[in-house]
Amino acid sequence: MVKKVQSLGNHLIVELYECHREFINDARSVENALINAVNISGAKMVQSVVHEFNPHGISGVVVIEESHFSVHTWPEYGYCALDIFTCGDEIDYYSALHYLKEEFKAKNFSVTEMKRGMLDLPVKLLHKPKSEEGKNETRIHN
Amino acid sequence: MVKKVQSLGNHLIVELYECHREFINDARSVENALINAVNISGAKMVQSVVHEFNPHGISGVVVIEESHFSVHTWPEYGYCALDIFTCGDEIDYYSALHYLKEEFKAKNFSVTEMKRGMLDLPVKLLHKPKSEEGKNETRIHN
Repeated sequence: MVKKVQSLGNHLIVELYECHREFINDARSVENALINAVNISGAKMVQSVVHEFNPHGISGVVVIEESHFSVHTWPEYGYCALDIFTCGDEIDYYSALHYLKEEFKAKNFSVTEMKRGMLDLPVKLLHKPKSEEGKNETRIHN
Repeated sequence: MVKKVQSLGNHLIVELYECHREFINDARSVENALINAVNISGAKMVQSVVHEFNPHGISGVVVIEESHFSVHTWPEYGYCALDIFTCGDEIDYYSALHYLKEEFKAKNFSVTEMKRGMLDLPVKLLHKPKSEEGKNETRIHN
């Protein structure tokens, strides 16, 4: 019997190579793809921030109730650094990854999966308290 | 002579244990610490998003010109998952890490350092085009 160790978070660290250069240089396309991926995974979006570099490159971060998705793109090299950090047992992060890989038309990719917060405690770890409507708060600054 | 391989990004994946539980449950403290860490590193903040869970837990993400800083805290376990993702040769990410470890009063920690976008191209890799004042754009949605 394999002993299972609990972790608070699950982090996919993804390198996407030979992506579609125009797609990953379009802020709206990248943002829509990230938000769709969040929805596909079953996570709940809190806030999306997309930053567009001139003349090329996009940074997109979506804060979710279950941590975050982020992507940084280098269209000039066809490369994206994607992170999918989720908590809890119910988030389908591999479907989100598959969707993004397809959207970005990555010809090659690598994935490192890390367990975050692997705490050996004698209790069932809770990823986050269930949100009560209207109680959680978000602040943004620039 | 050691051959140096270029990478686009540098990613510190940090586990912080036995942190100060009140500090890491205070949205303003966590946000201020993240923003100070960004400044200490020499990176340039684009946007900060902090989400406060009820009754405990903070998610903080700062999008920077050079990628992002993020932290997810579990005050009930004294644990934080910190990511410091930067680009370019000029960002002092270890000083940022040291500062955050001290602010959060972490008694134990571990660091995994990953090179992101290790592309073997016959050119000097540029982390991002230099921003021209007023040309870069940021969009936020919730």
